Amino acid sequence: MALKLYSYWRSSASYRVRIALNIKGLDYTLQPVHLVKDGGQQHSDNYADLNPANLVPTLVDDDEDVILNQSLAICEYLDEKYPNLPQLLPEHALDRARVRTVAMDIACDVQPLANLRVLNYLASEYGVDQGGKATWAKHWINKCFATVEKRLQNTAADYCFGFTLSLADVCLMPQVYNAHRFGVDMSQFPTIQRIAENLAELEAFKRAAPENQPDAE
Amino acid sequence: MALKLYSYWRSSASYRVRIALNIKGLDYTLQPVHLVKDGGQQHSDNYADLNPANLVPTLVDDDEDVILNQSLAICEYLDEKYPNLPQLLPEHALDRARVRTVAMDIACDVQPLANLRVLNYLASEYGVDQGGKATWAKHWINKCFATVEKRLQNTAADYCFGFTLSLADVCLMPQVYNAHRFGVDMSQFPTIQRIAENLAELEAFKRAAPENQPDAE
Repeated sequence: MALKLYSYWRSSASYRVRIALNIKGLDYTLQPVHLVKDGGQQHSDNYADLNPANLVPTLVDDDEDVILNQSLAICEYLDEKYPNLPQLLPEHALDRARVRTVAMDIACDVQPLANLRVLNYLASEYGVDQGGKATWAKHWINKCFATVEKRLQNTAADYCFGFTLSLADVCLMPQVYNAHRFGVDMSQFPTIQRIAENLAELEAFKRAAPENQPDAE
Repeated sequence: MALKLYSYWRSSASYRVRIALNIKGLDYTLQPVHLVKDGGQQHSDNYADLNPANLVPTLVDDDEDVILNQSLAICEYLDEKYPNLPQLLPEHALDRARVRTVAMDIACDVQPLANLRVLNYLASEYGVDQGGKATWAKHWINKCFATVEKRLQNTAADYCFGFTLSLADVCLMPQVYNAHRFGVDMSQFPTIQRIAENLAELEAFKRAAPENQPDAE
């Protein structure tokens, strides 16, 4: 097993996979892909061979000739491939569905709307300025977090689902990081805020944090 | 088992779950939620109790007190809950990851960008007109389908992955429907086009099609 993660320090999809690898205790080397420099290194031919979507992350396992894209697909793969390491999904179908629902509230309903390529397109096509971009991002983050806050009322303890880490926490933390970047008022979401504070104390999350990446600026 | 699906005929997330239920051969009753009428019935208090995101679909199983949101979480739940019915995901971890990757290319990287609430927000916040909304939708659909077309080169036969239906087909068909709505030139994507034509012949997909829903207009 020689896992290599193509990652950008501030990409929340990359951040998710870094957290997942750390929770499972899997060693990996990090290969930074700069999403801005050189017009975006994700658009190079070499990288496009690994990820035809020109997005990060990509996980490569050289020993097994495995190349995987899509952060949640990677997390599910790691969980299925290494079932004896700490699991990101619980055992029972209904519990798994509830964890995946929160993960997808974030991965489907907000992150794709407020990422770099969309904000850039808003600027280039519709002349939206920095302030307008932040308004856009905050609008969707507020909507998503209002939903997630309600869901977590019934399930949260230290973490999103009780006292065990899950794929929901893996997705939540990077979205909270983005929320801070865009100036979202987190006092509206006390449960999310409390969980994020707990997660921030954990070694797996600390090592995955954007500011602790080799390519952090 | 008394499955009820809260659905809107033209919602592609609802369409996915209708296809999944049909592939698995599960009976269900359909409860239409009109996303436009009455300011959007998904915003009613009654519906918000079922889905705090005010989005469709919601799957309810009255016998088991199960209420589930998020189309892909619902599909995975159905696959895990009814493993002896036709499976939407293959057996091996790597194959499963590849199917999920295509599903998420669609469910994360395009559908959230070109759905009703986002197009409405573009209009109300940035004054984007009908033509501008179609340009926006086409831009993201073209990007996503270029990626999916490349991925499917290596995996497709009659369907996205060989000759067996999967979660990738469940997601592909509704996105092809949206592509037609927005006037995407599908001749750019011959593999996707061919698969969509095959899928359109199948009873499970026909019965799930927007125009065959009781709330179709």
